[in-house]
Amino acid sequence: MAPAGGGAAAGHGAAGRYRGAVPLALSAPTQSRTMILDVVRASRTISRVELATATGLTQATVSTVVRRLIDEGLVVEVGRGASTGGKPRTLLAIEPTARYALGVQLGTDGTTFVLADLGGAIVSRWRRGALVGTDPGHAVGTIAAEVDGIVERSGIDRRRLTGLGVVAPGPLQAATRIVLAQPPMTAWVDFPVRERLEAATRLPVLLDNDATATAAGLYWADGIAPTTTLAALFMGQGVGAGLLTGGRVFRGASGNAGEVGHVTVDLDGPVCWCGNRGCVEALAGPAAVVERARAAGVDLGDDDRPVLAAFGALARLALAGDRVALDLVEDSARYLAVAAHTLVNVVDPDLLVLTGPAFAVAGPLYLPVVAQHVAEHRFARGSGPVQVRLSTHGPESAALGAATLVLQAELAPRGAEAPLT
Amino acid sequence: MAPAGGGAAAGHGAAGRYRGAVPLALSAPTQSRTMILDVVRASRTISRVELATATGLTQATVSTVVRRLIDEGLVVEVGRGASTGGKPRTLLAIEPTARYALGVQLGTDGTTFVLADLGGAIVSRWRRGALVGTDPGHAVGTIAAEVDGIVERSGIDRRRLTGLGVVAPGPLQAATRIVLAQPPMTAWVDFPVRERLEAATRLPVLLDNDATATAAGLYWADGIAPTTTLAALFMGQGVGAGLLTGGRVFRGASGNAGEVGHVTVDLDGPVCWCGNRGCVEALAGPAAVVERARAAGVDLGDDDRPVLAAFGALARLALAGDRVALDLVEDSARYLAVAAHTLVNVVDPDLLVLTGPAFAVAGPLYLPVVAQHVAEHRFARGSGPVQVRLSTHGPESAALGAATLVLQAELAPRGAEAPLT
Repeated sequence: MAPAGGGAAAGHGAAGRYRGAVPLALSAPTQSRTMILDVVRASRTISRVELATATGLTQATVSTVVRRLIDEGLVVEVGRGASTGGKPRTLLAIEPTARYALGVQLGTDGTTFVLADLGGAIVSRWRRGALVGTDPGHAVGTIAAEVDGIVERSGIDRRRLTGLGVVAPGPLQAATRIVLAQPPMTAWVDFPVRERLEAATRLPVLLDNDATATAAGLYWADGIAPTTTLAALFMGQGVGAGLLTGGRVFRGASGNAGEVGHVTVDLDGPVCWCGNRGCVEALAGPAAVVERARAAGVDLGDDDRPVLAAFGALARLALAGDRVALDLVEDSARYLAVAAHTLVNVVDPDLLVLTGPAFAVAGPLYLPVVAQHVAEHRFARGSGPVQVRLSTHGPESAALGAATLVLQAELAPRGAEAPLT
Repeated sequence: MAPAGGGAAAGHGAAGRYRGAVPLALSAPTQSRTMILDVVRASRTISRVELATATGLTQATVSTVVRRLIDEGLVVEVGRGASTGGKPRTLLAIEPTARYALGVQLGTDGTTFVLADLGGAIVSRWRRGALVGTDPGHAVGTIAAEVDGIVERSGIDRRRLTGLGVVAPGPLQAATRIVLAQPPMTAWVDFPVRERLEAATRLPVLLDNDATATAAGLYWADGIAPTTTLAALFMGQGVGAGLLTGGRVFRGASGNAGEVGHVTVDLDGPVCWCGNRGCVEALAGPAAVVERARAAGVDLGDDDRPVLAAFGALARLALAGDRVALDLVEDSARYLAVAAHTLVNVVDPDLLVLTGPAFAVAGPLYLPVVAQHVAEHRFARGSGPVQVRLSTHGPESAALGAATLVLQAELAPRGAEAPLT
């Protein structure tokens, strides 16, 4: 599936329909190029001989493709590796300054902007107030102005800027619009986000789910191997997950895979804003925890503080040893552990990463509960362990992921994205 | 992932490691062959021109590959399609008698054998008593004798028999052994099933999860399009799911994806045999329903009757309008609907099929409850519908799936299976 081309549309549209699901007809040069770029990026540095071994391509093909990538400025020679008997081998690496992309996360507590380079490193990041509660048309203008500002201040060559990725909580349709949202984002439902932003920024724009983007960002920036099956459990104001396998995000049929925050863990639980009952998010997401803390008399600042700011205050109290705060967070962690267990049983990843702004502040309280529950209760625990860890990009993981999806779409032409949709 | 080569091993082994996850280096002829076979099979009949459109391959490539497939006897010309202005087009189809495969499902209530042809049609099927409660070494001998018998009786050329697929409830390790099981199957844990069966039958043997195999069987036998993302919710004595996307089963990192029967829907629920608490299977699987029915005084025959036989008796009572039986089944359906909803939210399929022996008898009672719950509560319901239906191969879907995986492995060489691991 081609992120920039329109997410789920690739699987449902008439024209490219078959190609969307069966990508084996990609031309050999396109495949080789995509694969070599992906392996060089994941390896940080690698020799041509190692590239041939890792990809299964012939040395001749590797040499030809690498020469072209060097000519295009995407790959550079960065020195020599240790000799293995013969002459030392020249090491290759991605040229990080060859391409840039912008990522924007629309959050309920604020808007995060990231400028990332081709290596997945964050060149610049900034935050401003939440835009999701404002008129979407007005928000588009604000985002466009911010984008112009950062491009100017960063001094990068605008021709190297490949596009803008925008991420929001799901669900989305065809990577063009939001189809269901809770307050304060309801005004964005069915607003043509992608179209309006493309007109306002004069950049190719990609719209995706925040958790899905996060999985791509982790893969790109953290050097996760293409053999990894990754589940990124994301907690912002909402709870979701991004899935990645074979180096590409897994989106499902409509582009909305991974919605583990809205699985039922209590058939008689409260009705969630999504219309379902007993959802993990309704029972144990930041909004539920903050509401419970306030009812218990915990001081989390003004009542109109954004949920994630209040949740951060609660997490800091818990980390400082406040018993009431700690009990509330640990109760939430029990439910998040069940969500993680569900993901692990259904998707069977070998790496589970806790990420997103809520885990960025409270991750150390959740990690041991989640890791222990998964290790002890996973159905396939006899077949080997699942690694569980915290993301190092918690607060901006989704914005970084948005930028990453833009870079991936630039480097891996449309068809090459298809196997994992 | 190559089923015959060893499931999860492809993702974790040292030698083929990278190839396992990034298959883009497959030779172009191998890719074209696999894709063309897959499209011809899914289409039932198709012209060369339509094949080129569907695959994105050139007409020249299609002609070359088709000629080879005809020479090998795998594809035949079956007549002419309607003219679209020019001369009528010759239609191609799979030659069903070109290859055969055997599938065996090890169930707690019986053992199902299926002989399937290359078109996915069942040539022969038979059942015998359960083998899972017997000594595995003895069971291997029994299976080998049954296999010899059916090959002889069917009169097929043994050289056209590609192998034997064996499926069992999970979890499995590396497609070679069962790593966790409940009574009466505990003696099979860590028994080298695949190795012993290969020695006894002198056939290539593939071991896989029953629900996973079912997804492959539905794809192969029911003409499901390669663009479909399929979730097969399987209920035998246990509850699980098989996942399929892009025409290949999705197995996850350890080969154990889809274990939705062991996700928690009640944090304070009963402890399941798997060690987790409040699992769908423990709360609402056939064993739980039968136990509840017996406690309520419903006559389901002898107490030592296999669970699925007793569950079938209960389902027939419910279908005949018995109020107590109906209430018990509808209560179970509420939980299965939650499991289906979990699958749909996490995997985002566009087709959900209820299959396996328990749905084969009770499916009409479960289907409306599941379909309505998914339609109303799915998180991404705004992005389009999910089709929910009953399998037409309920009782033998897993055995057929086992045979299908063998055929797939025969037709799609090892590497071609990889994108979906």
